[in-house]
Amino acid sequence: MYDMTIRLQTDSSVCLYEQIYEHIKREIRGGKLLEGERLPSTRSLADYLQVARSTVDYAYGQLLDEGYIESRPCKGYFVCPLEEVLQIEDREGTVKKQRAVVSPDMHFPKEEAEQNKMLYEYDFSPHDIDMSGFPFSVWKKITRSILTDANRDLFSRGEPQGDYDLRLTISRYLHSSRGVNCEPEQIVVGAGNDYLLMLLEKILGRHVRIAMEYPTYGRSRQIFQSFAYHIVTVDMDENGMMVKQLDREDVSAVYVMPSHQFPSGVVMPIGRRLELLKWAYREPGRYVIEDDYDSEFRYHGKPIPALQASDEQGRVIYLGSFSKAIAPAIRVSFMVLPKPLLEKYRRDCSFYSCTVSRIDQSILNCFIRDGYFERHLNKMRKMYRAKHELLLECLKPFRNDFTISGENAGLHLLLTSKKNLPEAELVRRAAEQGVRVYGLIDSMKDAEACKEYEDSRAGTILLGFGALNREQIEEGVGRLHKVWL
Amino acid sequence: MYDMTIRLQTDSSVCLYEQIYEHIKREIRGGKLLEGERLPSTRSLADYLQVARSTVDYAYGQLLDEGYIESRPCKGYFVCPLEEVLQIEDREGTVKKQRAVVSPDMHFPKEEAEQNKMLYEYDFSPHDIDMSGFPFSVWKKITRSILTDANRDLFSRGEPQGDYDLRLTISRYLHSSRGVNCEPEQIVVGAGNDYLLMLLEKILGRHVRIAMEYPTYGRSRQIFQSFAYHIVTVDMDENGMMVKQLDREDVSAVYVMPSHQFPSGVVMPIGRRLELLKWAYREPGRYVIEDDYDSEFRYHGKPIPALQASDEQGRVIYLGSFSKAIAPAIRVSFMVLPKPLLEKYRRDCSFYSCTVSRIDQSILNCFIRDGYFERHLNKMRKMYRAKHELLLECLKPFRNDFTISGENAGLHLLLTSKKNLPEAELVRRAAEQGVRVYGLIDSMKDAEACKEYEDSRAGTILLGFGALNREQIEEGVGRLHKVWL
Repeated sequence: MYDMTIRLQTDSSVCLYEQIYEHIKREIRGGKLLEGERLPSTRSLADYLQVARSTVDYAYGQLLDEGYIESRPCKGYFVCPLEEVLQIEDREGTVKKQRAVVSPDMHFPKEEAEQNKMLYEYDFSPHDIDMSGFPFSVWKKITRSILTDANRDLFSRGEPQGDYDLRLTISRYLHSSRGVNCEPEQIVVGAGNDYLLMLLEKILGRHVRIAMEYPTYGRSRQIFQSFAYHIVTVDMDENGMMVKQLDREDVSAVYVMPSHQFPSGVVMPIGRRLELLKWAYREPGRYVIEDDYDSEFRYHGKPIPALQASDEQGRVIYLGSFSKAIAPAIRVSFMVLPKPLLEKYRRDCSFYSCTVSRIDQSILNCFIRDGYFERHLNKMRKMYRAKHELLLECLKPFRNDFTISGENAGLHLLLTSKKNLPEAELVRRAAEQGVRVYGLIDSMKDAEACKEYEDSRAGTILLGFGALNREQIEEGVGRLHKVWL
Repeated sequence: MYDMTIRLQTDSSVCLYEQIYEHIKREIRGGKLLEGERLPSTRSLADYLQVARSTVDYAYGQLLDEGYIESRPCKGYFVCPLEEVLQIEDREGTVKKQRAVVSPDMHFPKEEAEQNKMLYEYDFSPHDIDMSGFPFSVWKKITRSILTDANRDLFSRGEPQGDYDLRLTISRYLHSSRGVNCEPEQIVVGAGNDYLLMLLEKILGRHVRIAMEYPTYGRSRQIFQSFAYHIVTVDMDENGMMVKQLDREDVSAVYVMPSHQFPSGVVMPIGRRLELLKWAYREPGRYVIEDDYDSEFRYHGKPIPALQASDEQGRVIYLGSFSKAIAPAIRVSFMVLPKPLLEKYRRDCSFYSCTVSRIDQSILNCFIRDGYFERHLNKMRKMYRAKHELLLECLKPFRNDFTISGENAGLHLLLTSKKNLPEAELVRRAAEQGVRVYGLIDSMKDAEACKEYEDSRAGTILLGFGALNREQIEEGVGRLHKVWL
């Protein structure tokens, strides 16, 4: 129990002890002070309210007498169990209401998504990852080693862009694993991609006309919408965004996921990438936002460097995150700014403090620098590859009725109905079997923009396998077999 | 060392092993691969690049022969020390440049502020706090208890507003210590006030005309400027913002710090608060942003509840933070939204993920809920009260030449020259003595807006004492005595 802030009125006809007594009684009745909660000691409350100790003593005494609180020897004063308080109210003749002091979860339901999960036995979410592989003991070991007195300065405010050591580690990781060329000064560390996009809005400015693929990642689309950016939708072919369409549009920014487009799973080949860069080079002030959200997991073909690696004129803004590769709770993302934008960042945004605590930055830095991240990635790649192969195997009987795509990388596949079954129907039938699947259109979270798409194409379903184990994949697909074929 | 992303060209006349060899050589020469760094094993690199293992073996062999890398038994291949590489370059007849591979800190100087600290022996920063009181062992204990396998779900994505448990704890703490009335649903947890203001921009919208006191907190002013908000400056008297002036201005929002205004230290009395609320009630859509940044530390008079506690119509947006009371690195702030804005938040912002990791949220929740925070606050109050009294005592000889104000609360005092010595002169003289003090005008970070103020008033200095110990306060003030009196 903290101090209790009571507004005492010294000029009131009600004496001070009574004001304190009435306040606490009201708090207990109103459910603001809960059963078993300790009240401040009389001395500390008297100190805090700047009244004589006897005043508080007297108020507590009255509450004790009336059974609102109880005194436990050597421990202090505690709020009495609820029923006893209600009995007082009964005695006082007030109506015994059904009190709203039950488990907090019952009052404030968790997000809909959380609730829905309870109804499904198998959830093929394309966003969930396998947390069973999380290196818990290593994470604990690093945390312990960082939380030592010697690191006391970690509790001070750090650099706005993130600690230099972490940025150096990220720049080296990006270079070796993604071919990204950058200095640590170009990196801005932030708590999640959403936040970094908010910063980017401050850098790129308002009224930006931005091109996005169709379909695209719904969350990013929502965020650009919340910036009131003018969003231009560009069609995709099997090589990704049809860059030629950009010439017809008056846009200065493009958002793409070249390594593994969400939701389509398309990997943009080098020819198309160069075409996109050429578009950017043609006019000053044109930028490409590359969201490299799950580039770590690739099952076929050679590794493909990031688009940023091919950019020779500083037109690519690279966004990466550790949410997929480590854990969603590791709220560390980063943005690599090309040098011209770096100057704008420094001028317009460098007063925004870093949103990641220095302790978390240090833990992540050790995790990457000391090789644990590489080991973790190798382990996860193996796990996901095995699940990926199993899912493809289980889906063999579906190949007559569905086209399977997006199978080169990432944590989900796409199934498109050859019989033109609509998306909503496929989702509904799966739900009947206790299986949650995700419609392509639904994943875009923008019913209006999807209207045309919906009408013109057969239903496409995203099947994510990240968080499911072997049995769940087999059984889940088995149930889909019953209702989809 | 992670995998190495090399773009191999299968249609090139240069054979694969040579492409790998050339790539690694270039990386070592360019300082991208550093001395002592381990290369991937030949097997893993071959796997990763999807080439035969013998191809990588051959490339490594060549690098070994030429002295770029060395083989350590049972450990793998490592990049050779720099001098050896440079000797190779000499042998090859290239010009021996001064290589830029020194300590990273030498390349990328830390922030100016950090550098300046080196030049001062005593820094009276009004923003720094005493970290020696940080309960390190408790923090470690809680962290250890939270990082157990049983809490594996903490690594999953949490609720956008922050975890319910933490919001419940904060709402109860706010109620008892600050008189704030709110439900956990009204609280939005975020990584720092800056971020929460960014969210608030999405809720309040653009083109907002906002009133701020003069002088005010420079960082908040910068942030509202970066939103392109129209900022109206309102004068202060000894009771804070002169609310009557608001009637002349077309504004819909007001930013105030009623519990302890920064930088003036003024505490807004209840009469002025009610006047401010009345202003808000007069038109729909008017809001007061209450920044309660350091309300925990108060030295005289009774505790004063937050302005939010007096608001009966849901017009106060309450901002709080644990940066001052615990540590700046605890990047957890919170915003209490009045119910009408809560609906807007849910509609327009609830897709922004929470910027604080669930682990950090849980640690803080335990820290508050289990009473450690209260104990910590009591300890810090005592420490700061002692420093505050010492500083006032040391400043006694200054009372002829300076007016001392803002002494009721917080971690800084204000000294205003009675002899009209300008701020810059006072700062300069202090610096000569190795003492860093902060000018009132300078603290506002807005030279233009300050012009008028500067011309019309005597110099005022902020003396922060949070981070200084007794000796530093005594000696620091002693040095000021030499040059200010």
